[in-house]
Amino acid sequence: MTDKAQTAIQPTRAEDYPEWYQQVIKASVLAERSPVRGCMVIRPWGYALWENIVRVLDDMFKATGVKNAYFPVFIPLSFLEKEAAHVEGFAKECAVVTHHRLEKNDAGALVPAGPLTEPLVVRPTSETIIGDSFSKWVSSYRDLPVLINQWANVVRWEMRTRLFLRTSEFLWQEGHTAHATAEEALERTRMMLDVYARMSEEYLAMPVVKGAKTEAERFPGAVETLCIEAMMQDRKALQAGTSHFLGQNFARASEIKFQTADEVEDYVWTTSWGASTRLIGGLIMIHGDDDGILLPPRIASAHVVLLPIVRKDADRQRVMEYTESLAAELREKFYHHRRLVVEIDSRDIGGARGWEWIKKGIPLRVEIGPRDIAQNSVYVGRRDRAHRDKFSIPKDQFVAQVMDILDEIQQTLFARALAFRKENTVTIEDNAAFYDFFTPQNQQKPEIHGGFAVCSWCGQSACEQKIKEDLAVTIRCIPFEQDRDPGTCVGCGKPGTQRVIFAKAY
Amino acid sequence: MTDKAQTAIQPTRAEDYPEWYQQVIKASVLAERSPVRGCMVIRPWGYALWENIVRVLDDMFKATGVKNAYFPVFIPLSFLEKEAAHVEGFAKECAVVTHHRLEKNDAGALVPAGPLTEPLVVRPTSETIIGDSFSKWVSSYRDLPVLINQWANVVRWEMRTRLFLRTSEFLWQEGHTAHATAEEALERTRMMLDVYARMSEEYLAMPVVKGAKTEAERFPGAVETLCIEAMMQDRKALQAGTSHFLGQNFARASEIKFQTADEVEDYVWTTSWGASTRLIGGLIMIHGDDDGILLPPRIASAHVVLLPIVRKDADRQRVMEYTESLAAELREKFYHHRRLVVEIDSRDIGGARGWEWIKKGIPLRVEIGPRDIAQNSVYVGRRDRAHRDKFSIPKDQFVAQVMDILDEIQQTLFARALAFRKENTVTIEDNAAFYDFFTPQNQQKPEIHGGFAVCSWCGQSACEQKIKEDLAVTIRCIPFEQDRDPGTCVGCGKPGTQRVIFAKAY
Repeated sequence: MTDKAQTAIQPTRAEDYPEWYQQVIKASVLAERSPVRGCMVIRPWGYALWENIVRVLDDMFKATGVKNAYFPVFIPLSFLEKEAAHVEGFAKECAVVTHHRLEKNDAGALVPAGPLTEPLVVRPTSETIIGDSFSKWVSSYRDLPVLINQWANVVRWEMRTRLFLRTSEFLWQEGHTAHATAEEALERTRMMLDVYARMSEEYLAMPVVKGAKTEAERFPGAVETLCIEAMMQDRKALQAGTSHFLGQNFARASEIKFQTADEVEDYVWTTSWGASTRLIGGLIMIHGDDDGILLPPRIASAHVVLLPIVRKDADRQRVMEYTESLAAELREKFYHHRRLVVEIDSRDIGGARGWEWIKKGIPLRVEIGPRDIAQNSVYVGRRDRAHRDKFSIPKDQFVAQVMDILDEIQQTLFARALAFRKENTVTIEDNAAFYDFFTPQNQQKPEIHGGFAVCSWCGQSACEQKIKEDLAVTIRCIPFEQDRDPGTCVGCGKPGTQRVIFAKAY
Repeated sequence: MTDKAQTAIQPTRAEDYPEWYQQVIKASVLAERSPVRGCMVIRPWGYALWENIVRVLDDMFKATGVKNAYFPVFIPLSFLEKEAAHVEGFAKECAVVTHHRLEKNDAGALVPAGPLTEPLVVRPTSETIIGDSFSKWVSSYRDLPVLINQWANVVRWEMRTRLFLRTSEFLWQEGHTAHATAEEALERTRMMLDVYARMSEEYLAMPVVKGAKTEAERFPGAVETLCIEAMMQDRKALQAGTSHFLGQNFARASEIKFQTADEVEDYVWTTSWGASTRLIGGLIMIHGDDDGILLPPRIASAHVVLLPIVRKDADRQRVMEYTESLAAELREKFYHHRRLVVEIDSRDIGGARGWEWIKKGIPLRVEIGPRDIAQNSVYVGRRDRAHRDKFSIPKDQFVAQVMDILDEIQQTLFARALAFRKENTVTIEDNAAFYDFFTPQNQQKPEIHGGFAVCSWCGQSACEQKIKEDLAVTIRCIPFEQDRDPGTCVGCGKPGTQRVIFAKAY
């Protein structure tokens, strides 16, 4: 593939976006399907991304006073049932534990034994089990706020799964807080949404729209769900993080009461907020190109790969020593609070080597051959530029400028994604134009959808529901930043109450 | 409790060691029982300990070339069955998922629905599911070694549980590696045991004996199990980490084959190694005293608590400003690769405040009142000394010496634990003396056991089994460091083949 006429990923995004997504993940060895229905194996290159996301979010959470804790993976059925809307929302996708051992039956086959008196559900989310702890921890306003986060695996049994985007098991964090007043809980709900937005934009280079969900799209049991929405390259929306104001619903369900400063008994006000390995799916879809993924440097599994070029055995020692010493120099440097991660790939596999790293999305590839060493220079390829567009640079200059180059790549990725979203965001005031825009037959390419349509909406669920049934398009959010006063509803023509963003969604 | 005649924890260790353990955990708010059978809630003060253990181990693993990944929480029954000894070892304690949704029955009750065609077991350990991935990743000697670690929750259904020591769900890491030769796999098995030993001794201040398990005590399916064993204050042994050489057993079970450099097809050689939240149970039992837990500074949830003393409102602002500024100064410092964690506790609850922190085991308590400020000094209590034994020290000197003081505490804890182990380790060559030593009626205190008995052993499982049945005492390990040539077996009197350590165990 050294002299390569076609793209590294087949099919291309334009040819078949969903299949491109699968092939990109395969080529980058981020993850793979497992033999367990709907569950994935996150391979080291993908898990390192997750570790970086965890570290950044965890630091941000802690800076707001949140502490980590851990709660049981199992939720008794009776707990899940405590909040009616909640159990309704999750009952259809629960992994249920019914037995606690295995036994040989008469035919010699191993079968479940030791039935449980009460079935346990593998947590799809932990409001009810954490609520139970809160009810024991809180008795006075002096115990508030409680600010807890949990890093955990959760299970939601999905019938149609896609790596990272929708898997039966996924990794996430779930924050849970309890407050003395509704105002304080609402402030926390917004604060955590801001954390997610900052994470997405500053680290994942993923521009997001912040807003509120409509009633139909809210978390089961929430009074208000805030979200960040990003546009993927097929112009669909990806919900990249949600923050819920739960009012006193879960406090009532779990009996989380406290004595106020005025010595009155009241229920606490709670919030919950989560982000998951789905973010990695977003990363792939927002930055990937027809040669593979592109990792934003601030979150990349590794920053630089050094590719020593040895054509004669006589050169080997010199080239390897030069490479090792450059790696050592680079690893001394800190980029956004972590050391530069530098890989050395000295495999003798020809041009396939460079292509592997392109497909894996590493920000910088550095070739080092005898001629480069003679000039004390290196030959650099940037993942945000065409693969042939490499340049020679004095080694010391490269070492001095590597952080600037990485930041340039980071900014390029963000700017591209933002420009793409702008290009594909339209304002539509008229019902016919709206249906036209979202009718699949009117799209140029299969599975590539219209984009974000900013419209006025009447605020009625029935109207939203009709559009969903007709076009499989939903209101992604009511953006905090309203671009203008609402006109007439794009669905029913009645007076609009707010401006909303319609889109197809993951 | 300011003027306190009795200990902070009731009962004391001498009075009732198991109950002391429960009370110490309660008083320190490390963790609590959950409403889910056998599962615990790890509270923030306990989880911070775990986070520190994770960080230290993770860095050590990565320094040896290991990378993190993530595998499904569910294991198909057919996978577990692939290795006979393995399934035998875990069948009795498995949480089994049999359904994938919940449905209302005719009576309106929510019941499991959607039966699975094959039951799934919540992972008790992941050899078989990870082996399946390895079989796809490895085809040539060039793909080896594979060095993977996973941080995860695991479930082993326990009938009798104790917080941290034995819970149905616990957090752990499990390392899994595959190699081209037995020698290399054995070297890895020993290398990871050394990592655990270093973690235990240098960070947890927990002296350990390194050795090999006898056949009866091996991991189900392992060829060799290496372990580290520590002595708790009731003189029982705690296994603090294990590293298994699995030979080709799991490679055969999962069909992990490779082409050798000589172009012959062979099975790989695998290892696995794990350490868990059990380490926290060990920490509590090895360092705790009758006033609560003592956290070794290198792993402590926090290092210093500042306790501003405000007796008059007029003093408040001055005292708080001084406290905040001291906290800021201390937080600039790094202690063993992380910033000093400094808490400020300004609650006005009298002497109970200091006692709470003693029970929580924070290494240093610093009182700051108007008189201290006038002298520009602070009043310091060290957790490794009696609670009254506090000293005044110029503030700047405290700031300059705080790391030395912390290291002194760290060393004191280790030295105490080592001295305790030496005092309670005996050499026994004679069967009668051995039975005498381990007969409960001969102990001075209930639940306090003899200690470690170093003895010669014939190497026969039957002999080991008889002792276990008679005395509930087992061979904890065959220490790598053999103190002398074996004499006659302490059990049967036949010629010994090795020196071993007998003890009661957790």
